[in-house]
Amino acid sequence: MKFKKTHDIDQISISLEGKQVVIGGWVEDLRKLGKMSFLTVRDVTGLAQIIVKDIALPEDLTRQTVIMVQGVVQGTKARDFAYEIKAEAIDILTKAVHPLPIDPIGRLESNIDNRLNSRALDLRNQRVAAIFKIRSTVLASLRKTFLEKRFIEITTPKIIGSASEGGANLFSLEYFGKKAYLAQSPQLYKEQMTIGLERVFEIASFYRAEKSHTGRHLSEFTSIDLEAAFMDYTDVIQILEDLVVQVFKDVIANCQTELAILERKLEVPKTPFDRITYSQIISELSQKGIDLKFGDDLMDSHLKLVGESHPGLFFLLDWPMSLKPFYIHPRDDDPKISRSFDLQYGYLELSSGGRRLHDPSTLKARIAEQGLDPASFEDHLRAFDWGMPPHSGWGMGLDRLMTVIIGTDNVREVVLYPRDPERLSP
Amino acid sequence: MKFKKTHDIDQISISLEGKQVVIGGWVEDLRKLGKMSFLTVRDVTGLAQIIVKDIALPEDLTRQTVIMVQGVVQGTKARDFAYEIKAEAIDILTKAVHPLPIDPIGRLESNIDNRLNSRALDLRNQRVAAIFKIRSTVLASLRKTFLEKRFIEITTPKIIGSASEGGANLFSLEYFGKKAYLAQSPQLYKEQMTIGLERVFEIASFYRAEKSHTGRHLSEFTSIDLEAAFMDYTDVIQILEDLVVQVFKDVIANCQTELAILERKLEVPKTPFDRITYSQIISELSQKGIDLKFGDDLMDSHLKLVGESHPGLFFLLDWPMSLKPFYIHPRDDDPKISRSFDLQYGYLELSSGGRRLHDPSTLKARIAEQGLDPASFEDHLRAFDWGMPPHSGWGMGLDRLMTVIIGTDNVREVVLYPRDPERLSP
Repeated sequence: MKFKKTHDIDQISISLEGKQVVIGGWVEDLRKLGKMSFLTVRDVTGLAQIIVKDIALPEDLTRQTVIMVQGVVQGTKARDFAYEIKAEAIDILTKAVHPLPIDPIGRLESNIDNRLNSRALDLRNQRVAAIFKIRSTVLASLRKTFLEKRFIEITTPKIIGSASEGGANLFSLEYFGKKAYLAQSPQLYKEQMTIGLERVFEIASFYRAEKSHTGRHLSEFTSIDLEAAFMDYTDVIQILEDLVVQVFKDVIANCQTELAILERKLEVPKTPFDRITYSQIISELSQKGIDLKFGDDLMDSHLKLVGESHPGLFFLLDWPMSLKPFYIHPRDDDPKISRSFDLQYGYLELSSGGRRLHDPSTLKARIAEQGLDPASFEDHLRAFDWGMPPHSGWGMGLDRLMTVIIGTDNVREVVLYPRDPERLSP
Repeated sequence: MKFKKTHDIDQISISLEGKQVVIGGWVEDLRKLGKMSFLTVRDVTGLAQIIVKDIALPEDLTRQTVIMVQGVVQGTKARDFAYEIKAEAIDILTKAVHPLPIDPIGRLESNIDNRLNSRALDLRNQRVAAIFKIRSTVLASLRKTFLEKRFIEITTPKIIGSASEGGANLFSLEYFGKKAYLAQSPQLYKEQMTIGLERVFEIASFYRAEKSHTGRHLSEFTSIDLEAAFMDYTDVIQILEDLVVQVFKDVIANCQTELAILERKLEVPKTPFDRITYSQIISELSQKGIDLKFGDDLMDSHLKLVGESHPGLFFLLDWPMSLKPFYIHPRDDDPKISRSFDLQYGYLELSSGGRRLHDPSTLKARIAEQGLDPASFEDHLRAFDWGMPPHSGWGMGLDRLMTVIIGTDNVREVVLYPRDPERLSP
């Protein structure tokens, strides 16, 4: 590199008029007009117009070729630009092949499979880059709220020695001659961590070997997890609501450019989110001619109907115990009903959580009741004898939350390199 | 739970004298003195003294039993406390068994294996909890600096379809009938992401199937990764220095209590860190009677000697190309020397990085030269035709950085659930 980049494009403005700058970026367009050429160059922060007049234009400037430009900032008559850069020197760093496998400007639409096969190039599309800039902002927002609420960030193991949590849908691997599994959630570990750290969170990749082919399932996904001692499920529901609202506020405040590129109008959700019980949903569905009885699971087709009458964010509370994992705590007033909830966005489940059992003997009984092998839970159950506090928590799919923010029905749009039963590369 | 917790213990002070509070925590100690009992209760934020006088003391209050206490704040004559709480009601939530497998107060030392087998209880030891509170602060500090320097957070896939990056020491798994691997770094993905996002970082778990039995290797580890377009290795070295210095500053500013518990006096490292070339190290070693020639690798025994003369943080620069991975860029003035570096803390390697090759044909030649299978890199090489900018980056082991901050020589002290060839549980 002959020059050193002095500015990102969005750091240049007409206030630097007459000053020399060096930018680096990708050739987006080139127009020749007599002895002058107009070159547009894009970096991750924006687009700049370069005037090439008194110096020779390098030959063979294919689109997406990487260049550095040294030049002087000056005023412009161009409608789309607030300034232009009069080039003094142009250095070609890497030529891009022609033709490219997809059109990174997005004028020609490519299907999602072709785009994922060329994901690095796909990110030169401003719409795609905008999604992943927003994702980075969402992650920062989530962690800020967790830390403000005095949660401690933990990292749980992803390689686990026993097929806990039910055991279905786990990827298995050989681990130095032993059989191991990839964790599908930090559930048991985060519960144990409440003994020493009380309030913990983790945002990490987890794995599910499920042969799903939908727009909302992936084999590798990012999970946002929280667990808190001395809290009931109503407390962690409130935290979840605060967290989601703050995410919307931070994206609206910090991603104006990206939302504009996506033509996405985002509004802070109204609070409090509706809190609707499972039993209310059952009677709503019965009014629509769907006859379910207490204990029946809500199938996709039912949730679509629910989503029609409740299109936004709402909590679906108090599921039957029989539909919930072994670690969920019943209500005191009716042990058939659990202290559990889902956060729904219409028909889409974003998060699931609840109060957990903390009494070791009740927990042991529930594991046996659900037909699970208590031996798989030996390590976990031991911890409940050491002073396990009452605790509640939830897990939320970051990728699903991102689909709601971006406004897409395919989770592959918001994951850089999605993994599903058919896709293992690039 | 009869009561709702109103305060963390560190949120109570004598300024609340006469006010009613509810705390939740673990019984640390109990002394009876005539008709009065003194109870100490610890939560994640501190220790409180409870006076039990006019109400009955619950029977069988074993240590580490979880209780909630409602009471009134009052002044105290006790030397170790700034206030005490006169109990109005005590609710036993979960009894802890007696005896416990390890002493969570730390008065009786347990070996690391017993502690890891009871990790949740081990975290009730204030020294252990302090380590993981500091770890949470370190993570927040790292991300803050990355975002300030305009890096975008990415999540790369951990399940990968080809044994890239050399291919040795990878865990393999069956992925819907295909063979897959667990990533040992985000190297190839983060390089590709510079095409669209320019400056990226990731902090995530990665995997290495290495039969190591040292205090600095684990099979599952947290890696901090950065990659930046338009930067040379000197630029990313500077970012790394800034980042590490800021981590020390933030830990010193925000973890005073934790550092005091650990009796750890931390100082902000002096800048600039020394920058020492590989060739300088070779001649230093020769003065100590170790005869190495250019191109010889530095073995553990050599690095111990280097660490004796350079005990703190320093950069070890300009390694021979022959010792470096295929993607590392040579110097222009001498193609046998690479634009690479390690960040060392004495003999301990914390980080490794450098300028990367961005020219596709040079990269292909290097892959062949190193005896690697170009077919494994097909997806990766394709991306270099799409406008790959010059770029540099590094990876740093978070767990190793934590050992330096805490002052331990065993990485198992700073990882909640370490994984090594012998340890797969809990």
